[in-house]
Amino acid sequence: MTNERLIYLPIGGAGEIGMNCYVYGHGAPGRERLIVIDLGVTFPDMDSTPGIDLILPDISWLEARADRIEAIFITHAHEDHIGALAHLWPKLNAPIYARKFTAAIGRHKMQDVGLPKDAITVVEARPAVVNAGPFDVQFVPISHSVPESSALVIDSPAGRVVHTGDFKLDPAPVVGEAWDPAAFEAIASERPVKALMCDSTNVFTPHPGRSESTLGGPLRELIGNAKGMVVATTFASNVARLKTLADAAQASGRSICLLGRAMRRMVATAQETGILTDFPATISPEQVLDMPRDNVLLIVTGSQGERRAATAQLARGKYLGIDLKEGDMFLFSSRTIPGNERSVGRIMNQLSEMGVTLQDDGGGLYHVSGHANRPDLVAVHSIVKPQMMIPMHGEHRHLREHARLATEAGIRSTIVTNGMVMDITGNTPVPVERIEPKRVYLDGGMLIGAFDGVVRDRIRMALNGHIMVTLLVDENDELMGEAWVETMGLSNVGRTGPFSEGLERDLTDWLDKAGAKMMRDDDRLEEGIRRQVRNIGQNEIGKKPEVTVVISRLSDE
Amino acid sequence: MTNERLIYLPIGGAGEIGMNCYVYGHGAPGRERLIVIDLGVTFPDMDSTPGIDLILPDISWLEARADRIEAIFITHAHEDHIGALAHLWPKLNAPIYARKFTAAIGRHKMQDVGLPKDAITVVEARPAVVNAGPFDVQFVPISHSVPESSALVIDSPAGRVVHTGDFKLDPAPVVGEAWDPAAFEAIASERPVKALMCDSTNVFTPHPGRSESTLGGPLRELIGNAKGMVVATTFASNVARLKTLADAAQASGRSICLLGRAMRRMVATAQETGILTDFPATISPEQVLDMPRDNVLLIVTGSQGERRAATAQLARGKYLGIDLKEGDMFLFSSRTIPGNERSVGRIMNQLSEMGVTLQDDGGGLYHVSGHANRPDLVAVHSIVKPQMMIPMHGEHRHLREHARLATEAGIRSTIVTNGMVMDITGNTPVPVERIEPKRVYLDGGMLIGAFDGVVRDRIRMALNGHIMVTLLVDENDELMGEAWVETMGLSNVGRTGPFSEGLERDLTDWLDKAGAKMMRDDDRLEEGIRRQVRNIGQNEIGKKPEVTVVISRLSDE
Repeated sequence: MTNERLIYLPIGGAGEIGMNCYVYGHGAPGRERLIVIDLGVTFPDMDSTPGIDLILPDISWLEARADRIEAIFITHAHEDHIGALAHLWPKLNAPIYARKFTAAIGRHKMQDVGLPKDAITVVEARPAVVNAGPFDVQFVPISHSVPESSALVIDSPAGRVVHTGDFKLDPAPVVGEAWDPAAFEAIASERPVKALMCDSTNVFTPHPGRSESTLGGPLRELIGNAKGMVVATTFASNVARLKTLADAAQASGRSICLLGRAMRRMVATAQETGILTDFPATISPEQVLDMPRDNVLLIVTGSQGERRAATAQLARGKYLGIDLKEGDMFLFSSRTIPGNERSVGRIMNQLSEMGVTLQDDGGGLYHVSGHANRPDLVAVHSIVKPQMMIPMHGEHRHLREHARLATEAGIRSTIVTNGMVMDITGNTPVPVERIEPKRVYLDGGMLIGAFDGVVRDRIRMALNGHIMVTLLVDENDELMGEAWVETMGLSNVGRTGPFSEGLERDLTDWLDKAGAKMMRDDDRLEEGIRRQVRNIGQNEIGKKPEVTVVISRLSDE
Repeated sequence: MTNERLIYLPIGGAGEIGMNCYVYGHGAPGRERLIVIDLGVTFPDMDSTPGIDLILPDISWLEARADRIEAIFITHAHEDHIGALAHLWPKLNAPIYARKFTAAIGRHKMQDVGLPKDAITVVEARPAVVNAGPFDVQFVPISHSVPESSALVIDSPAGRVVHTGDFKLDPAPVVGEAWDPAAFEAIASERPVKALMCDSTNVFTPHPGRSESTLGGPLRELIGNAKGMVVATTFASNVARLKTLADAAQASGRSICLLGRAMRRMVATAQETGILTDFPATISPEQVLDMPRDNVLLIVTGSQGERRAATAQLARGKYLGIDLKEGDMFLFSSRTIPGNERSVGRIMNQLSEMGVTLQDDGGGLYHVSGHANRPDLVAVHSIVKPQMMIPMHGEHRHLREHARLATEAGIRSTIVTNGMVMDITGNTPVPVERIEPKRVYLDGGMLIGAFDGVVRDRIRMALNGHIMVTLLVDENDELMGEAWVETMGLSNVGRTGPFSEGLERDLTDWLDKAGAKMMRDDDRLEEGIRRQVRNIGQNEIGKKPEVTVVISRLSDE
C-alpha cells in the first residue's frame, strides 16, 4: 500500500489549445489502474497538416496498457474533448461515462461509425459517484459555452483531485447550470483537495469573465432594429447563444431557420435531453423564401470560416435558394480563433461585396468567452484551496502564466506538458517518466502517424513542386531513347526556354555521358539524376523541386 | 480639349491590404498620359500560395501602354508600396520619383538585381513640383510608421487630386515629419480638391490614433525594470520605434545590438540619408557575448514570425552564439498581422519553454498603429474638403465602411476596387472600363501568372498526395511486366494491405483485361488508369490522389 502512487499524465491539451486528453492512475508503479479524461481532437491547417481531416492524440501509451484502464470520462461535448472518442475508443474498449447531453452527442458519434452506443453510460451529477477501480469520480456542474460542462472530483486513496474541464464563472448562463461557488467550497471542505488541474486558456485576459445573460439586451436591440434579413453565426454547441438569438428574434417577430447539419443536430439533441426547453418552432429554408426578409433570422454554422459550412456557402452566393442582399445584416456572434482570421476575413469581404451589413462581436456586446479569465482563475484557486495547482488546457505560455499566478498566491504549481508522467502522491508533483507526446492524423480513411513522413512530403511538394523522371535502360545498361520528364506545380518556362523539354535534353546528355558503373546501379543512378534535376531546377527556374525517379530496365538479371 | 478626361485605376491595394499600385491618367480617351503611384507586393501564405516568394500586381495593362507612362511615384518605403519596384520596373521603364530615404531604399532594391539606381530621382517635398506630362505632382510629408511617408498632390487640367498614401495623424512621430493640418488646409484652399484617395486600413478602429511619442515613457520603464537580457522585435522600417527602443536602452545603461539584415540596412540607410541622427553606436553579436546580460538590448527582425528572421532563430536556440534564458525578456513591440497568429504563437511558446518572459504590446503601451483610425479619417475628410472621396488601401469591407463614413458627412463616395477604370473628370466618379484584377507570383526566379495552374497543382498535391504510374507497353500494345506505382504524400498502408503494392497488382489486373483499343490509345489509357487509381485510392485509403501516368512504348509507329 505504501508503495502505491497517484499519477497524472496529460496526453493532449497541456501545451496546446485543443485535443484534450488526460490520464490519472493509482496503484503500484507500473501497475496503476488508469482512468482517461476526455478524448478530444484538434484541427489541421494548411501550414503544418495539409490534406489531413483531424488531429488526434497518440494514445499508444494507453493502448499498451488497455487492460489497466477502468473507465473513460467525458467532461463536455466540445470537439476538443469528445471529438476523438469514436476514432480511438476501439483501441481502449473501456466503459465511457458522461452526463446526459454529452452522452447523447457521444452516442451520435459512436453510431455514425457503427460502434455500440451503449458503451456510453449516462451519469447523474454529484453526489452520484462512478466507481472506477481505485477512483471514485463525480461530475460537478460548471458553466461553459456548451450545456452540462462538468468538473470532475476524482477521489483516490492518495487524495482528492479536482479536474476543472473547461469552464467559466457564469452566474446566469441562460441554458444549463450556473457557476455555484458553494458547491466547490463544499468539495474543498468535505476533503482537502490535493491537486487542482485547471483550464488555462484565458489566463492572459485581465478582466473578469462576462455572463452569457448580458448578451440578451444588446442582441434584442440589434436584431430589433435590423431592417432586412438577419443572419447570425456562432458555434452550434453554444446552445445558450442559440436560445438568446432565438429569443431576440421572437421579440422582434422574426421566425427562426437553422442552417447547417451541426446546428440542427445540436438543437435537436438539446431538446431531446431536456436541456433546451421552449425553443421556438423553426422554419425550413423553403419557408424562408416565402416570407418577408425582415421576418426571418437565420442561425447558421461556420463562424470560423469553414469552407463547407452555411456561412461560407451564403457568402459565395445562393444557398438552398436563399441569397443575401443589400440591407441584410450578418452577425458574427463569435470570436475568430487565431489562425482562422484569413478565412473569416475572406467571407466578410464576400458579404461586403453583396452589400450586406457586417456586425462583429461589437467589442463584447454580442459575444462572451466560455473560459475563465485571470481574476476568475484566482477566485477558483482560492475557493478550492488545493495543495498544488497544475495548469492544463493551454499553450506553453498560458500554462506558464497560470503557474506563476498560483505560485504568487502561495499555491505550489508546476508546468506539466503533454507526455510528462507526474507522481502527485506527495506534497509536490514529481516527474517520473516522459513519453514522447505525439499526434495521429486522420487522413481520409486512415490513421497515420505525425512523423510518418506523409505530411512532410505533401508540404515539400507544395513548396517545391514535383518532378518525375522516367528512363528506360536496355539489357546492356544503356539508355533507350530519352529521359522522360513530367512536372507538377512548376513553371513551364525556364530562363533559357521550355522547362521540361530543356530538362529532358540536359538529363539525356548527362546520362549518355554517365559511366557504365553508374548506369548499372539503380541507387547511384537515381541519386545522380536527383542531383542533376535539382541543380538544373535551381539554374533554370530558381527552385529545387522534389524528384521521383523511375528506372525501367528491360532485363533485370 | 473638352474631350479629355482624368481617370483613376487601382491595380492593387483596393480590395486588399497590401500590394498597392494606383494609376492616374489624363488625355483623350484611350490616349491618356499615365502616372503610376507605388509598386508594392503582398505576401504569400501556405493556404493559397504555397512555395511562392512574393505576390505582385499584374501590370499587363500598364505594360501594353508603357509608351504612355510619364512617371512612377513611390509614396514611402514599405514593401507593400515599393516591394515590386525592382521586379516590375523593367517592364515599364519610366522615371521613378521618391523622396530621399525612400529613394535610397529603392536604389538598394534596384542594385540588388543589377538595375540602374539612377532610374530613381530624388525629389524634395512640396512646394517642389515634378512635372509628368499633364500632371504636376508634389510630395507632402505626412506621418506614418516609416520615415518620409508622403501624400501626393496631383494636379491635372481636370483638377486636383490628393492621394494620401499610408498615413496617421501623429503630432510627434519621434522620427520624421509630424502631421501638419495647416499644410493640408493650404492645399485645399490653394485649389479645391476634386478627389481624395484615402487610406482605409484602420476605418474600423473607433478611437483616435495614438502618437509614437506616447511609447517612450512605458518602454523606458519596462526596459529599465528588466533584469536579464532584453530582446525587442518590431518592423525594421519603423525607424522611430528603433530610436525609441534605443533611447530606452541607453537610459538604463544597455548597449544595443541589431540582429537581422533588414534591421541593419534600415538603420544605416536612415543614418546615411540624415533621417536618423544621434542613434547610439551599436555592438556586434560577438560583443554581446562578452557583456553582462542586463547590459544589452537586442533589436531584432521577425515580429511576424517569419521563419528565417532573427526572432524565430533565437526562439529555436542559439543564434550567432546568443541564447536566451530564464529571466530574459522578449518584447513584441508590434501587432500580429492577421494570418500570422500561428507562427507568432509558435515562437512565443518556444520562448516560454526557455523560461523567457514574454511581453506583448501591453494593450497599446508598447506599440501604436501607423494608420489613421476612424475619427482621424473624418478629420482628414473635413480638412481636405474633397468633391469626392474614393477609399483606397483596404479590403472590401474597409472600403465600404470608409465610403459610408464619407457619404454620411455629405461627401460623394464610391467603392472602387482593383481593375475598375474610373472617369473622375466630372462631379461623380463614373466607371468606364473594367480590367481583370490579377496577380503575378514570384516563384524562385520566375514570374508566373496566378492562374497558370502551378499553384493549383501544388495545393492539390498537398491536399491529396501524388501517385505516379509508369507502364511499359510493347510493340503489340501489350503491357510488359507490371504497372509501377510510386506514391508521395500518402499512407503506405491501405485497408487491405500495403497500398502501392496492392495498387500495382490491381492496376496490372485491370490492364491485362483492358481491350486492345484502349491499350493502343495513350489518352484513353491514361484516363482509364487515372480513374482506376482514384477509385482504388478512395476504397483503400479514403483519398483520391493526384495522378501522373507515364506510358513508355517500346515502339511508337
